Amino acid sequence: MNTQREINDFFNTGYKRYVPHVSIDCAIFGYHERQLKILLINIKSVEGMCLPGGYIKRTETLTEAAGRIVEERTGIKNLFLQQFKTFGDPGRATVRGMDEKKLSKIFGVRIEKNNWIMDQTISIGFYAITDFSQVKPKPDFMSEFCKWYDIDQLPHLLFDHDEMVKEALHTMRLQLYHYPIGINLLPEKFTLTEIHALYETLLGKKLDIRNFPKKLMFLGVIKKLNEKINIGPHRSPFLYKFDKVKYNKALKEGIILD
Amino acid sequence: MNTQREINDFFNTGYKRYVPHVSIDCAIFGYHERQLKILLINIKSVEGMCLPGGYIKRTETLTEAAGRIVEERTGIKNLFLQQFKTFGDPGRATVRGMDEKKLSKIFGVRIEKNNWIMDQTISIGFYAITDFSQVKPKPDFMSEFCKWYDIDQLPHLLFDHDEMVKEALHTMRLQLYHYPIGINLLPEKFTLTEIHALYETLLGKKLDIRNFPKKLMFLGVIKKLNEKINIGPHRSPFLYKFDKVKYNKALKEGIILD
Repeated sequence: MNTQREINDFFNTGYKRYVPHVSIDCAIFGYHERQLKILLINIKSVEGMCLPGGYIKRTETLTEAAGRIVEERTGIKNLFLQQFKTFGDPGRATVRGMDEKKLSKIFGVRIEKNNWIMDQTISIGFYAITDFSQVKPKPDFMSEFCKWYDIDQLPHLLFDHDEMVKEALHTMRLQLYHYPIGINLLPEKFTLTEIHALYETLLGKKLDIRNFPKKLMFLGVIKKLNEKINIGPHRSPFLYKFDKVKYNKALKEGIILD
Repeated sequence: MNTQREINDFFNTGYKRYVPHVSIDCAIFGYHERQLKILLINIKSVEGMCLPGGYIKRTETLTEAAGRIVEERTGIKNLFLQQFKTFGDPGRATVRGMDEKKLSKIFGVRIEKNNWIMDQTISIGFYAITDFSQVKPKPDFMSEFCKWYDIDQLPHLLFDHDEMVKEALHTMRLQLYHYPIGINLLPEKFTLTEIHALYETLLGKKLDIRNFPKKLMFLGVIKKLNEKINIGPHRSPFLYKFDKVKYNKALKEGIILD
């Protein structure tokens, strides 16, 4: 959606193609070598950042809509997506100083007070996790910037998006105890130290050394290779890899880690 | 909502008081002495049952709306409510043979094809757990029956409500590992056998004897009383009760049980 005509269509008749009153916001986490980030975007002429989001086409499932929104911002198809919570407090989408007149000016189209995007909107939160070193973030037509922020150094976000990030982190962290993670976040072959660091970084706390990896080994989700890596004098740990069949089974059925 | 005037208002101008395109459906589980049930309701003149639901007032939070809907059906205020998933597949709310003409006839009000309740609707699922022996279920204005069904003997439900029940059970069961449960479901003083039976019934599977209760004791969520109950010859187990302060803290912060 880039031409002025497409933008006009979005504001004037978008309610015919999208479900009004409902949006999706995506907490896209990025992991790479012990760092956890999250993707933030701005809105033209508005100070502050927020989560990337969008509307649901009337022909899409919620997961398809979230997948499209994530792909549009990251370029990555079929990222593992998880719904975490829906947000609907009255007044949640209000931004001080933002009204239909200001929006009309920003987007070059006449937007009335009763325009479909001005009415109360409930937003469904999805989270995803990807390797941020593989992603070139791309702004949408409403924004100028889209970039990665360290999870520990987030600015105060617009709307109710501080709460969304908190809830996304909370759900992601609980789900680490019940679903495997790591494919596409670790090298194909990795050391126990590397997968341990992944869990510590995502959980945001120190763990008993090798607790999670041990349980994953026990479940057959990761397997030890007859192969070592040389990382320094007297340091050549064994390598491990995921068993994709067991990984996908665990993803489908759920597991109990501790 | 019982008079014809209130029903007319709901169909004619309800979109002004409620958020259109969004509803709430509630999986209200009932526990009592090793039995797990769920509350189902019908729709006048439609064959089949579904979960109780309703719309969100524009002045309510989602949890307030779910609390109101649950209270209207069960008479119970402030039941512990948990959002579990939002459902939005296109066509999810279609019922064969149900259209605006049939609805007009059932409710005695002229409902057009473009009436606000006929358009695509996304539904937010909440679950609750109560003691079914304490509840007198009450139908809403759209239905004739509202009653408890054994979880193991559910009929095929209308709309996408089979999937909703499956997802509600799945989330409730995962959350048993992370949040305490039992206040209002067990007597004030209970035996280890009774709390163990509660966990087994909710999880729908046999558990290592006293696994959950042991962890709950360790966390201080339940405490042993210096008091026994006589339940037969040579059988007088100790009684336990919840520590409400630690229970509420665990409910707020989450725990890891196994």
